[in-house]
Amino acid sequence: MTIRYTHPASASGDKIILIIGAGFAGLNAAKVLANQPGVQVILIDKKNHHVFQPLLYQVATAALNPSDVAMTIRSQFTRSERVAVHWGIVTAVNLDEKYVTASDTSLALETHIEVHYDYLIVACGVQHSYFGHAEWEPFAPGLKTIEHATEIRRRYLAAFERAENIPDPAEREPYLTFVVVGGGPTGVELAGAMAEISKTVIVNDFRHIDPSQARVLLIEAGPRVLPAFAEELSKKAERDLCALGVEVLTSTRVDQVGPEGVSAGGRLIPSHCVVWAAGVEAAKLNLTPTPQRDRAGRILVGPSLSLPDYPNVFVVGDMAAVEASPGQVVPGVAPAAIQEGRSAARNIINLLGAKPVERFRYRDKGTMATIGKKRAVVESGKIKLAGVIAWFAWLVIHILFLVGFKNRIAVLLQWIWSYLFSKRGARLITDENWQTAGAAAKPGSQAK
Amino acid sequence: MTIRYTHPASASGDKIILIIGAGFAGLNAAKVLANQPGVQVILIDKKNHHVFQPLLYQVATAALNPSDVAMTIRSQFTRSERVAVHWGIVTAVNLDEKYVTASDTSLALETHIEVHYDYLIVACGVQHSYFGHAEWEPFAPGLKTIEHATEIRRRYLAAFERAENIPDPAEREPYLTFVVVGGGPTGVELAGAMAEISKTVIVNDFRHIDPSQARVLLIEAGPRVLPAFAEELSKKAERDLCALGVEVLTSTRVDQVGPEGVSAGGRLIPSHCVVWAAGVEAAKLNLTPTPQRDRAGRILVGPSLSLPDYPNVFVVGDMAAVEASPGQVVPGVAPAAIQEGRSAARNIINLLGAKPVERFRYRDKGTMATIGKKRAVVESGKIKLAGVIAWFAWLVIHILFLVGFKNRIAVLLQWIWSYLFSKRGARLITDENWQTAGAAAKPGSQAK
Repeated sequence: MTIRYTHPASASGDKIILIIGAGFAGLNAAKVLANQPGVQVILIDKKNHHVFQPLLYQVATAALNPSDVAMTIRSQFTRSERVAVHWGIVTAVNLDEKYVTASDTSLALETHIEVHYDYLIVACGVQHSYFGHAEWEPFAPGLKTIEHATEIRRRYLAAFERAENIPDPAEREPYLTFVVVGGGPTGVELAGAMAEISKTVIVNDFRHIDPSQARVLLIEAGPRVLPAFAEELSKKAERDLCALGVEVLTSTRVDQVGPEGVSAGGRLIPSHCVVWAAGVEAAKLNLTPTPQRDRAGRILVGPSLSLPDYPNVFVVGDMAAVEASPGQVVPGVAPAAIQEGRSAARNIINLLGAKPVERFRYRDKGTMATIGKKRAVVESGKIKLAGVIAWFAWLVIHILFLVGFKNRIAVLLQWIWSYLFSKRGARLITDENWQTAGAAAKPGSQAK
Repeated sequence: MTIRYTHPASASGDKIILIIGAGFAGLNAAKVLANQPGVQVILIDKKNHHVFQPLLYQVATAALNPSDVAMTIRSQFTRSERVAVHWGIVTAVNLDEKYVTASDTSLALETHIEVHYDYLIVACGVQHSYFGHAEWEPFAPGLKTIEHATEIRRRYLAAFERAENIPDPAEREPYLTFVVVGGGPTGVELAGAMAEISKTVIVNDFRHIDPSQARVLLIEAGPRVLPAFAEELSKKAERDLCALGVEVLTSTRVDQVGPEGVSAGGRLIPSHCVVWAAGVEAAKLNLTPTPQRDRAGRILVGPSLSLPDYPNVFVVGDMAAVEASPGQVVPGVAPAAIQEGRSAARNIINLLGAKPVERFRYRDKGTMATIGKKRAVVESGKIKLAGVIAWFAWLVIHILFLVGFKNRIAVLLQWIWSYLFSKRGARLITDENWQTAGAAAKPGSQAK
């Protein structure tokens, strides 16, 4: 069944701007358009919340609460009557007839809602890529959503609890071995935090095991961690990781991930907590006609971020393949997504005013990664920082970012508080199964 | 397979005190025993965290984070080397041979760990009772655990999101109808909070629905809400609920709960968010020989809280049927559980010192319930309060309680902060399914 959705404001003659995805790109596009006269914005996302991804690893390692790094999308537009937020999954996009079909996760999946648009912004982001081994996912979750983060937290904390219950030290070992696959910023930050917590926060909480003896391995296929950074910073990061006790295995390829652990470089590393931070690919989205995509699945766009032949359709954020300079694609980082989202929104305003569109220009703000709680590496243009100074720069930049993100100094103070003092706050292991009996219908099925 | 677990300290000749359950009763028993020379305490719980149940309804209604009302059990005993905390499920208790078998939720369920004890404290609490209709549970979760609270939060928030996606007002109605079954303190607090939030926090966040038009129904089988309170307070609570817009249906029996909603008093109330707060029964625990239980499944204990014929075994908290005065059973409330846990612990110390055991004496501190954010009813001895004064009393008492609970003024301030200012903080809808593909193995299965 298809319900044709008529936006209540379409009778007013306003133009409908549909945005798919409320990550950094889509959210910022909507904010630029929020108070624009003559437009109605419809923002669709498959979650009810926007995630501040750069701090997601802190949820995965129990330092912050999920709600510290996420906010409901609609709460950002309470006072923007021109923006309607919908929780739904876009199932198809018809570029020629200018409509999208979406389904509510709850309503029967055969019910599709049809939404027509005048302008479209596609900003669905990326998902993990297991290089053709989707069957590895259950054994090595990635870190893109709040659900991923709480699942990794659950496995990380549960591993220590389980080890405490096992009398035989040899049998314990796979529970006290943690493997992070992928040496980019996420992998480095996760491995560093995991090693640090086992040696500080929880070190005195167990009676039969010594959490500080837990092994954390970081596996990277390339010759060095943080390959996007200058070589000297990679070396410093690797040294800092080693100082925290992380075993860094570079030039090591993962051959297999399964219930027993990870096979890499010809040997099995037994582990019951493996995290995947090794690669991403653009989100799947059923567009007709099919646009051209690059090897990573990113959609090729023109210099103004619009689709070739569809000047009213923009693709932004990690999902777009945009050239920063000839042969150089804009990296998939938050500042780039924000800039692209804003540029696309401004271009729609230009088109509405019959003005020429602007060419997207990427302003590279640099890149950074923390290693544990007091060290980081920062690279911005010719500036290269490492150690405590870099960590302080990381902190200040993330605080400034969060101020804009949460829009409230109050929440910011709370965050600083929990980050600096309350590392113990979020150490809950919760189960996906809330039912006493356990056997009956799955939660959520009530709404079908 | 059974692993015989030998406590590392048992060689020392210390007495082993095993406590099952880390609710208010078990946790407080462990605290009394924590630094007692000559004993080793083993505390087993099926969760890794203790829950401050009186505030759980605030998690269910998105006012507080799970970690605001829960703390990891082992973090309470970091400096108590005599206390070992284990995350496990007790599968059987052999009273004559003085051992317990437990299994780790993660390890294969056929692996049982055998733990011998000298003294045993049983404190497993209660679970929801669906009066013989366990099949209602998927459609009407109760509120006893963090998982319950986040599931109710998910359904409550998702209902508004889904209603926003439905163009037809008649089809929307079941999504904007919330039913709470049971008019005790939990039911009253849940219904009041649900009604209040729909009229305040989220009221301006939607474009197609008016959240303030949502219906909240409270169904109670007896003639009045809060039956444990004085009749005048019941009336005041009912009036306060009505002022918040809650429809209170007393003397109304629920006949059926299903995917369509609730059948009560001969009519169907279509609803996709039903919460069960109607009754509890003692937790199941496989004890051999089987002790005597009352109608609610509570285990009958003697005046010193020990099992008849087993002076080394104590049953405390909601699971125990203890007489406060002839014919009057101690109610299942947190202060009673705390008092019982401490009394049992002191009696074990008495037994170890060859002193006579004390008779348990319940000091009734009274009872209270909030209605919305600014009203409450309080009854303590001859004192009866209602309205804003009662709410203030409720606030002070819960703050004092939390000081002892979290042990840190810092965390207390954070709680006051989020309670007073950040109602929007915890409005995340997260799914139990973290996998991208969705089809593969269930999370957690990796560890089996």
